[in-house]
Amino acid sequence: MGRNLYDGVRVVDLTNNFAGPMSSALLADYGAEVIHVEKPVTGDDNRFFSPMVDGVSVSHMSANRGKRSLVLDLKDPRSIESIKKLAAEADILIESYRPGVMDRLGLGYEAIKAVNPGVIYCSISAYGQTGPYANRPGYDVIAQAVSGAMYMTGDPNGPPTKIGSAIGDWVGALAAFGTIGTAMYHRAVTGKGQHIDISLARLLLWVFARFDFTFTGKPETRSGNYHTTLAPYGIFNGSHGDSIIIGALNQNLWTKLCGVMGCPEFAEDPRYNTNAKRCDNLKDVIQIIEGWLKRLDDIGEAERRLMEAGVPCAKVYSPEDAFQDPHFNTCGWITKIPAPAGVTSIDGRFFPSNPFTFSAVAPQYRPAPTLGQDNHSILERLGYSFEEVENMQKEWSEKAKK
Amino acid sequence: MGRNLYDGVRVVDLTNNFAGPMSSALLADYGAEVIHVEKPVTGDDNRFFSPMVDGVSVSHMSANRGKRSLVLDLKDPRSIESIKKLAAEADILIESYRPGVMDRLGLGYEAIKAVNPGVIYCSISAYGQTGPYANRPGYDVIAQAVSGAMYMTGDPNGPPTKIGSAIGDWVGALAAFGTIGTAMYHRAVTGKGQHIDISLARLLLWVFARFDFTFTGKPETRSGNYHTTLAPYGIFNGSHGDSIIIGALNQNLWTKLCGVMGCPEFAEDPRYNTNAKRCDNLKDVIQIIEGWLKRLDDIGEAERRLMEAGVPCAKVYSPEDAFQDPHFNTCGWITKIPAPAGVTSIDGRFFPSNPFTFSAVAPQYRPAPTLGQDNHSILERLGYSFEEVENMQKEWSEKAKK
Repeated sequence: MGRNLYDGVRVVDLTNNFAGPMSSALLADYGAEVIHVEKPVTGDDNRFFSPMVDGVSVSHMSANRGKRSLVLDLKDPRSIESIKKLAAEADILIESYRPGVMDRLGLGYEAIKAVNPGVIYCSISAYGQTGPYANRPGYDVIAQAVSGAMYMTGDPNGPPTKIGSAIGDWVGALAAFGTIGTAMYHRAVTGKGQHIDISLARLLLWVFARFDFTFTGKPETRSGNYHTTLAPYGIFNGSHGDSIIIGALNQNLWTKLCGVMGCPEFAEDPRYNTNAKRCDNLKDVIQIIEGWLKRLDDIGEAERRLMEAGVPCAKVYSPEDAFQDPHFNTCGWITKIPAPAGVTSIDGRFFPSNPFTFSAVAPQYRPAPTLGQDNHSILERLGYSFEEVENMQKEWSEKAKK
Repeated sequence: MGRNLYDGVRVVDLTNNFAGPMSSALLADYGAEVIHVEKPVTGDDNRFFSPMVDGVSVSHMSANRGKRSLVLDLKDPRSIESIKKLAAEADILIESYRPGVMDRLGLGYEAIKAVNPGVIYCSISAYGQTGPYANRPGYDVIAQAVSGAMYMTGDPNGPPTKIGSAIGDWVGALAAFGTIGTAMYHRAVTGKGQHIDISLARLLLWVFARFDFTFTGKPETRSGNYHTTLAPYGIFNGSHGDSIIIGALNQNLWTKLCGVMGCPEFAEDPRYNTNAKRCDNLKDVIQIIEGWLKRLDDIGEAERRLMEAGVPCAKVYSPEDAFQDPHFNTCGWITKIPAPAGVTSIDGRFFPSNPFTFSAVAPQYRPAPTLGQDNHSILERLGYSFEEVENMQKEWSEKAKK
């Protein structure tokens, strides 16, 4: 493919945990040189997220893939000086400290801009860089809570529901990757760098919040596994813990569905022959569909028959189902990220590949670094001797272990 | 602020429904000239999504904001010719037809590239442009189903759970915006355009799928409102349908939490004095916390006391709570998108503002167009006379109404 998207682009990565590291992993996949700064002894917290294989976290295998690892003790002025030197020659700096920390370290946007006016400086946090909550801690569940994500998900007769993935982190990584690329375009055209402010809570607010009550007067509520104004449209359960999505939104599809279920008489039944009536009699509609599903041996049989008839449907996949899916595998949606040095039980971790395709460039998944593996090459280039690097590392490790 | 990000950038928008229109709305906010091609008489399907105000859908107000509207009948060769002319001079083309349709219309990537090698051509679909499922219909719930999103969300003793927002569409819009900006950077550096393939199912697979079972041998399961290996961490319910997130992941925070709840004796209780034991006795832990919450008048009181004590927490916000939140309002996370012509009952729709901040450029939210409002100016520029435009429009409308 020739030149990759970010070949020659230098990234200083001061992130930790998941959202930040995943965003810079995407940059690394497209050729960027990402120097990931980690704390002494333990490194990025994600090096200890379960599950672990041969003492190495699989989360780290994917979130830190393709990067270089530079261990620094940020309490040592030599570390701050080194970061400033790296940032001065970098295209991009990404950080996920609590707002204010980078300023206190002398590494805030204004300080870096002073030495590198073209820098793209991306900050990732829970509540953004300004405002009354900027300093609050930011677990993903907190972003889910304040955005309306939990309130809008789940059975209307039950409690709010947590989303089954740390979506704030994932969407945060995606937003950082895209806004950084966009800012790189802006810089290519204008010569100017800038500061990007990514907040996980704000991203989820955008995805989940509905403010229609301001003119309808009706409170927003969760609608569970069904739609409030379309039927049938939602999740229908079989007898073995399996479920299927069915969407039959017009009379033609409803008629087809009734045919497949072996109850063509319901197609024109006055209780069900319009979408509005099916919404009014949703409980009956669910009972009819689930009664049929429970008479089948497995949900795959329902899916086959519905697809043949042209009724939109999809089995509710477990991750195991997704892993085996022929389309996902044919299209390269699942990849194997090579295992880092020291891991011998597996040669890599199966993982969803980057979720978009650029025709002109392709990602390359490279292994995650061992902790501090690039200290010598990076710090010696900045002017420290081999011995000085050895001594600094020793000093920092001893301090950290105390 | 001077020059906006996409000032002078021309976008041909052949999208419909939500994901595509929202992605081009973001481009329009940053100054792009977006020509949204719509079908005769009804236009973009989102013009009829409920709720409606004065006969205009509020979904359309936000998803088509800031664009120009060009009505074309794609069965008329003059329409195809006009799109080709517009695409020849455009920077970006976005489309969300079922894969294959654009090729059949003579508007596929190769055809457009032949007249405009630098074009960034972004396709948005359910299952991507290639592979066995490429032609399947793509409701958002289908992307949620096959990605593992539903399977991984909800009570482990209940059925899978639908996420309370069309997240495939939202994440799709975000991904399209970011990959387009990234491709614009690539073009600025190399001069080359490209084809971007965005699949909603693939994006959600990336966010939700976990393939750790390939080496742990343990099936992936949903963990409901709590974490499998951390406690307490999750949603706890009060007595008035209100809930709160509490995350107390170490002994220090657990001790603080017990103090706030008025049961300091549980801090060192051998049933609860490590994270592992709290996971083992999760039901008790939930009972203790919810017992306390139910003795309080409202969940806000719990939040105040926990915050004072430094225990990470957040009220589970309804959209109404989010709307009133002082941080969100101070930070400009909620905006009002101006109402289009013809709407008089409201002057705009409250909506989450674009969920990231670029320091160098700011979005401007402009009203959505009336259907076909720009037909004359655009088609006359392409060489048609006033009368020819009038006649074409009349012809297409009559055909569509049949």
